[in-house]
Amino acid sequence: MSRNLDVVFYPRSVALLGASKDVSFYINPISSSRLREKFFLVNPRVSEVLGLKCYPSILDVPEPVDYAIFAVPARVVPEALEDCGRKGVRVVHIYSSGFSETGLEEGQLLEEEVLKIARSYGIRIIGPNCMGVYCPESGLFFSHDLPSESGPVAFISQSGGQAVNFVFEGLWRGFRFSKVVSYGNALDVDFVELVDYLAEDPKTSIIGAYVEGVRKTEGLLETLRRVSEKKPLVVLKGGRTEDGAQAAASHTGVLAGSTKIWEGLIKQVRAVSVETFEDMADFIVGFLYAFPPEGRGVSIVTTSGGSAVVHSDLCVKEGLKVPRFSEETQAELRKIIPVAGASIRNPLDAWMAFQSGILPEALNIVSRDTNIHSLIVEVQPAGFKVYTARDPNVVDKFTFILGETCKKIMSEQGKPTMIAVTKSIYPEFEAEIRSKFQSMNLPVYQSIYEAAKALSKLYLYKQNRETQR
Amino acid sequence: MSRNLDVVFYPRSVALLGASKDVSFYINPISSSRLREKFFLVNPRVSEVLGLKCYPSILDVPEPVDYAIFAVPARVVPEALEDCGRKGVRVVHIYSSGFSETGLEEGQLLEEEVLKIARSYGIRIIGPNCMGVYCPESGLFFSHDLPSESGPVAFISQSGGQAVNFVFEGLWRGFRFSKVVSYGNALDVDFVELVDYLAEDPKTSIIGAYVEGVRKTEGLLETLRRVSEKKPLVVLKGGRTEDGAQAAASHTGVLAGSTKIWEGLIKQVRAVSVETFEDMADFIVGFLYAFPPEGRGVSIVTTSGGSAVVHSDLCVKEGLKVPRFSEETQAELRKIIPVAGASIRNPLDAWMAFQSGILPEALNIVSRDTNIHSLIVEVQPAGFKVYTARDPNVVDKFTFILGETCKKIMSEQGKPTMIAVTKSIYPEFEAEIRSKFQSMNLPVYQSIYEAAKALSKLYLYKQNRETQR
Repeated sequence: MSRNLDVVFYPRSVALLGASKDVSFYINPISSSRLREKFFLVNPRVSEVLGLKCYPSILDVPEPVDYAIFAVPARVVPEALEDCGRKGVRVVHIYSSGFSETGLEEGQLLEEEVLKIARSYGIRIIGPNCMGVYCPESGLFFSHDLPSESGPVAFISQSGGQAVNFVFEGLWRGFRFSKVVSYGNALDVDFVELVDYLAEDPKTSIIGAYVEGVRKTEGLLETLRRVSEKKPLVVLKGGRTEDGAQAAASHTGVLAGSTKIWEGLIKQVRAVSVETFEDMADFIVGFLYAFPPEGRGVSIVTTSGGSAVVHSDLCVKEGLKVPRFSEETQAELRKIIPVAGASIRNPLDAWMAFQSGILPEALNIVSRDTNIHSLIVEVQPAGFKVYTARDPNVVDKFTFILGETCKKIMSEQGKPTMIAVTKSIYPEFEAEIRSKFQSMNLPVYQSIYEAAKALSKLYLYKQNRETQR
Repeated sequence: MSRNLDVVFYPRSVALLGASKDVSFYINPISSSRLREKFFLVNPRVSEVLGLKCYPSILDVPEPVDYAIFAVPARVVPEALEDCGRKGVRVVHIYSSGFSETGLEEGQLLEEEVLKIARSYGIRIIGPNCMGVYCPESGLFFSHDLPSESGPVAFISQSGGQAVNFVFEGLWRGFRFSKVVSYGNALDVDFVELVDYLAEDPKTSIIGAYVEGVRKTEGLLETLRRVSEKKPLVVLKGGRTEDGAQAAASHTGVLAGSTKIWEGLIKQVRAVSVETFEDMADFIVGFLYAFPPEGRGVSIVTTSGGSAVVHSDLCVKEGLKVPRFSEETQAELRKIIPVAGASIRNPLDAWMAFQSGILPEALNIVSRDTNIHSLIVEVQPAGFKVYTARDPNVVDKFTFILGETCKKIMSEQGKPTMIAVTKSIYPEFEAEIRSKFQSMNLPVYQSIYEAAKALSKLYLYKQNRETQR
């Protein structure tokens, strides 16, 4: 069954009904993608939009159409759908809103009518009230400025805005997407079917999901369990509180369901539960560019004693431990780091290690400590800014040496090593440092706290999988 | 007693002992400040540093010196302090480390010796092992790139790195400082004396404190209670966990003390407790540019339904409520906002309100709802980027109109109205929008969640003060 969704992600041709410059976020990117020769605009009122030819009806399009995007008023959707049926269209993505999410009976009835027509022609529906599909590999886009290169992350979302935002979050955080689906009211293609398909998708290695509620609960438990066995499924459940559930009802017209049932379900299927999109991105970065630690012991490496203390507290809050280094580790560190102004017990607070070039050696010593299962290295861009005046290549050299050291620790010691490039008043300089580490495929975070949250969730994920077996 | 610290913040002349380009972060900014004519470098080994004359000893400085910064090795501090005593120096800030924070007995003994000499001459000591004082009004600086303009925030910190970072955080978040003190090992001038002074300081309207432990607990409770009566005291306690307390012991050589005692103390004196520096900045922004809400009911105004749902959950998690608008409010909103694609129940999820210019009217309607005590308006820079192509002044117009509306709601309805300018892939465009709102003295956050945390803490703060009376 899940194979049937291939046409949703890899249509051979696409039509946009209701083409106008108001939906330039579909027209511009798709007309520049590999689908460009097979992308047809439809609008009976105009002959051209943004310099592209418009057909009066989908029935006038001279070639077969696999996939149609509806940007037409809700009331004309049934008629347009009939036309699509006659044309042999196989998937219709309804961008338009004005259906069950309004809470009005007419919206509900309209959805029922649409589903009936779709079923009669064997058309699959994405939506209504959603952004649809982003699949850079096939050429489907749903916003300006989305990356045209693919990556291993799939994301499915009942929210259109968050589908777009999460792609941007990935851009910022250093990961790309295989497939993203904003499926809105989920009249036909729903959560369960999508994750089932993505579990088998060879281009996807991790699945994120933003879900407010599920219409079809048949097979939910078994499917999610099967999916989680294959790849991590990271779920952000919207509408966990009563107020949130009310907002969800207004948003996508689905009942958010009991929080307790959902929490139990997520636990039972061993999915990863997160509360914010930032936490989802944190986990994805850790999974893609690092791996779960073997234990809770983390070493914090920083240039600020205050950061060391506050982040020790926050690591413990997240269920990690910041154990004191062994006597041997401390003795080895003492050989290369003078005592004044440094702490060599864990956290390793050693400004001079960053300054003098002995940081790789110090990290190697720390990584051999058996109490330590992971490392977080804090890099404060503001602290480096001053050195660029003396040596313009300082960032290149520093990021390369630190990056290579982290990679070696991960591959040789099997200990995830995260880099926290902190927020600074030099956004471009900070972005430069972050990008350099990201281009080395390293796990980059904006704070030690973020990295700690990721490590904690990765550890829990690993433990869950081990119990499973 | 507290008035005695005036000379700490407003010295008439400053000397730097151990001047070298390694401490250019003192030399450059102070030699460009209003103290420049009264700033003297001391170093027996060189005659010039960074183009400025060096005296061999402080005793050779031709004028009286109020305040000396020690950037000399720990072992020579006693001798240098004797010289300062003879010179009539009144405050010595010891930047140098290598004292009790090393955990070694010799560091402890050295501190005792230093304190004895200081007492014999009546010299006050800041530190050792710290950045010292930043007071833009008088010309004292402890880092490059610190703002030279003053503001109403005082911050005292046992961590030097975090003292500097928090000034940068303020720069980013739109607030400035009256006085910042990094006081390190707190051998002499300590937490209690500093907050006591700042409570009376007319240039300070809110005090932030990062504290790991307190050496002198005499009068602690009474002082903090007195301070909290006058202005908000926002405390981040480092070393709340066992691992964090160990890190604190390595950092500033003080025992972090029991978490429970501290939590009890902070509660008893009605200080505001935070866990991260970001949370501290959130509260400060809310206090300076808004005020506590009269109740827990918040309205979220956004352009994304997913954001509406997730943030409703997060608001509830933080102790707020997202109540449904009254029937009257919904009816009024319905008059100006078409139903499709919008939710008008709270959250108000209305892209077209942002797009069509009716946002101010919608906010005014919402602000009159008696269930609503505060508003958070989410602005997604990515969503606006596209309009700049059509109208280059769109940002100016939009921020001005929205900003004026928020100000009016605050002044006329008495409801704090926060603006969340979300993180985007256009950092400069985002910074431009943020700065425009900040320059209007509006409370700007990076997410609805951050704004909600601030509102929640502001509400708690207000409740605590009311119980107090």
